[in-house]
Amino acid sequence: MMSTQLQSYLTNAQTRQLDELIAWLRIPSISTISAHQPDVLAAAQWLVENMRQSGLENVELIETEGHPLVYGDWLHAGTDKPTVLVYGHYDVQPVDPLALWHTPPFEPTVRAGQGYRQEGDDLYARGSSDDKGQTFIHVKAVEALLQTTGALPVNIKFLIEGEEEAGSQAIGLYVPAHVEQLAADLCLISDTGMLAPDQPVITYGLRGNWTAEITVTGPSQDLHSGVYGGATHNPNQALCELLAALHDKDGHVTVPGFYDQVPELSDAERALLANVPYDEAKLLADNGAPAAYGEPAYTVVERIGARPTLEINGMWGGFITEGFKTVIPSQAHAKLSCRLVPNQDPAEIGQLVEAYLQQLAPPTIKVEVQGRPGSPAYTASLASPAIQWAAAAYQAVFGVAPIYKREGGSIPIVNKFQAALDIPIVLMGFGLPDDNLHAPNEKFYLPNFYKGIETSITFLQACGAQTKTD
Amino acid sequence: MMSTQLQSYLTNAQTRQLDELIAWLRIPSISTISAHQPDVLAAAQWLVENMRQSGLENVELIETEGHPLVYGDWLHAGTDKPTVLVYGHYDVQPVDPLALWHTPPFEPTVRAGQGYRQEGDDLYARGSSDDKGQTFIHVKAVEALLQTTGALPVNIKFLIEGEEEAGSQAIGLYVPAHVEQLAADLCLISDTGMLAPDQPVITYGLRGNWTAEITVTGPSQDLHSGVYGGATHNPNQALCELLAALHDKDGHVTVPGFYDQVPELSDAERALLANVPYDEAKLLADNGAPAAYGEPAYTVVERIGARPTLEINGMWGGFITEGFKTVIPSQAHAKLSCRLVPNQDPAEIGQLVEAYLQQLAPPTIKVEVQGRPGSPAYTASLASPAIQWAAAAYQAVFGVAPIYKREGGSIPIVNKFQAALDIPIVLMGFGLPDDNLHAPNEKFYLPNFYKGIETSITFLQACGAQTKTD
Repeated sequence: MMSTQLQSYLTNAQTRQLDELIAWLRIPSISTISAHQPDVLAAAQWLVENMRQSGLENVELIETEGHPLVYGDWLHAGTDKPTVLVYGHYDVQPVDPLALWHTPPFEPTVRAGQGYRQEGDDLYARGSSDDKGQTFIHVKAVEALLQTTGALPVNIKFLIEGEEEAGSQAIGLYVPAHVEQLAADLCLISDTGMLAPDQPVITYGLRGNWTAEITVTGPSQDLHSGVYGGATHNPNQALCELLAALHDKDGHVTVPGFYDQVPELSDAERALLANVPYDEAKLLADNGAPAAYGEPAYTVVERIGARPTLEINGMWGGFITEGFKTVIPSQAHAKLSCRLVPNQDPAEIGQLVEAYLQQLAPPTIKVEVQGRPGSPAYTASLASPAIQWAAAAYQAVFGVAPIYKREGGSIPIVNKFQAALDIPIVLMGFGLPDDNLHAPNEKFYLPNFYKGIETSITFLQACGAQTKTD
Repeated sequence: MMSTQLQSYLTNAQTRQLDELIAWLRIPSISTISAHQPDVLAAAQWLVENMRQSGLENVELIETEGHPLVYGDWLHAGTDKPTVLVYGHYDVQPVDPLALWHTPPFEPTVRAGQGYRQEGDDLYARGSSDDKGQTFIHVKAVEALLQTTGALPVNIKFLIEGEEEAGSQAIGLYVPAHVEQLAADLCLISDTGMLAPDQPVITYGLRGNWTAEITVTGPSQDLHSGVYGGATHNPNQALCELLAALHDKDGHVTVPGFYDQVPELSDAERALLANVPYDEAKLLADNGAPAAYGEPAYTVVERIGARPTLEINGMWGGFITEGFKTVIPSQAHAKLSCRLVPNQDPAEIGQLVEAYLQQLAPPTIKVEVQGRPGSPAYTASLASPAIQWAAAAYQAVFGVAPIYKREGGSIPIVNKFQAALDIPIVLMGFGLPDDNLHAPNEKFYLPNFYKGIETSITFLQACGAQTKTD
């Protein structure tokens, strides 16, 4: 239970803490677009300053080969208290198609909540939910504890990166090389979602990923389709033929070997996942598609969380602006990504996909596959005490026990933390299914921002109530 | 044979006539892009002025619902002399991808010829070959005859349009409504090509066309591929699956009924087309593709000229700029065009393609097909005297008899002229296979510009040597 003093502090701080978040969200820190490099740096510098003001110590911007990391700690709880490592990211996704945003993505706007919520405002901005808003929850929890009690119940370390949307390369190199600096008893991450405002979730699995850009080249330059059509394989058509061959009619990926390492779901796990109150009807209400899709042998929750996928995230070729141009393009392009489940090795999946595309490629065109380093999937042990403290904190603040689920998305760094630091990882998310992550009109449900700060405090207090036995 | 006076006039006029063409080519008259509407108008006005200066009479800019027509005539040859109707177009194709142009498309540049030509310069500019350069040949032929002899051997009418690259809608309405104004004994069009600088061609067939834009809609907005992937049919993937189903492995179009009206080629015609010195090796030298494509039962010349096709001229969906974004887009798009052969009705083909796409569409997505009015294919009677005069003119100027072929491209207005005016149409082209029509680095081989003017003069003189017998 939080003290009255803390409650009162948080109530008084709400407007200022929201204003701070809004200021951070104004910085367009898109990590995958090189023109935004100065903005990414500015967002990191802003965070350094805010963490210092919030009472964290040893706050520093750590230069890397890519975008900088931000570190800060508070280590005065005593050696008998656990150390919590908080991870988050300050970079955001690109914003196009810009025309579909109701308010500009980097002009944060508070609007009354819609949809299934009865009350509370939403904060619309790129990064509001993924992940500036969720990262900021823990900075503000630390601020509240230090301002009211002068101390934290645990030792804490923050490591916040700026490349989560770009593959987490720098932090992936940094963590294994700084095991002593980052040593902790558990890791706390808020970069996932709840099922509804009244239904928190503990995510115990994340899908991995592998991404690649595909280029099909036919003629050496764009051609007139009247002069060459019928005797020249159109690269647009060839790309469609290749990509169409990657799934069967049931949404099963046809790449040979793609499922070889995928474990069948146990009956126990299928029963646990069946508790997630999400079905085709809810999916369609959320995504607005005419019908659900995917492997018929698996439920929607299983398809999204526990089965691997292959998506065409983008494709383009030929004449794609206003008007008509009867052209056969020289090249056609696609951006692919695979979502992977435990045991699938991203590099091996990349090799399988590339080999299959090359095998399918007819002699009339050439295919180039530019793969990028991916990240494997993750599953947590549900027996870990840290997971139970998180469940208790959710219960205390939201008044309901969390549901356990596997998430479809990827947090590439989770595996790195587990491999390098060998500590339990708590994925305590405050996003909602309609937060429009990676899409126009991303938003964060503001009651979850405030309750998130309370949940973080409650969780840290629960951790601090334990005395380390080592 | 041209007089010494005419030869001398043309020699002296070369530089000035080229400068005039260059000035016209500087005007970016792209008819399918609405922002270029003022440029299209300016190109029409420029032509009006140049036709007047060249000695044509009654020159006027004819307003239409779309881009204007340009008309001019000279009708003093006598009623016993034939009347020739000259058609051409002053609009041009779009220029993207702009980055692939070696010199800007609207800054015409003369460079020494390359490739299989041993001498002569090329003029690089959008529209240089298609079709400002070829249209201008006849304006300058008239100028030379009027300046040297004060008269033309025939009556002549010019009707030049600004929507050839946009479907020829305005002229299609104008011609049937102005049959008396346009009455003529034959129609002369230079908007086709030769096989090589030393091998003229008389095109006796043109493919028709039908174009459409396809939109596949899945979810109501862009989605996070981690959160929804596996249970949502990705519209990029669905579009690929639909478009890949439109051809079999032999390049045969699979749309039911697509070939129902296509006549089988006669042995006589196949023998005639076999004279065209164009094979897979020449095709690949021109288009730079790794291998030829298309229906194995037909030669390359037959595939391009005498068989219908279906092309994906453009397609796009999802994230298509720098970086990666793991998105499932709400929509994916394609621009299709069919090249049609005689007997195929564009509207019927459009219905067949749309019906097949709707039949293929799974319940997980919706397909919208926005078809546009097309134009049917055309074949000429080789027995027409006009065709024989054209052959003689080519022989006189180029020193070699033309080859007869069917062209893969479309000139939508050809059918309108034949239907409304019922006159033979002479397709006397001066383009070359490597002119890069509709592609970056469009060029016109300048010796063909100058020889084209001589050929036009020789043709008009041959026409004028006939006395009408009606």
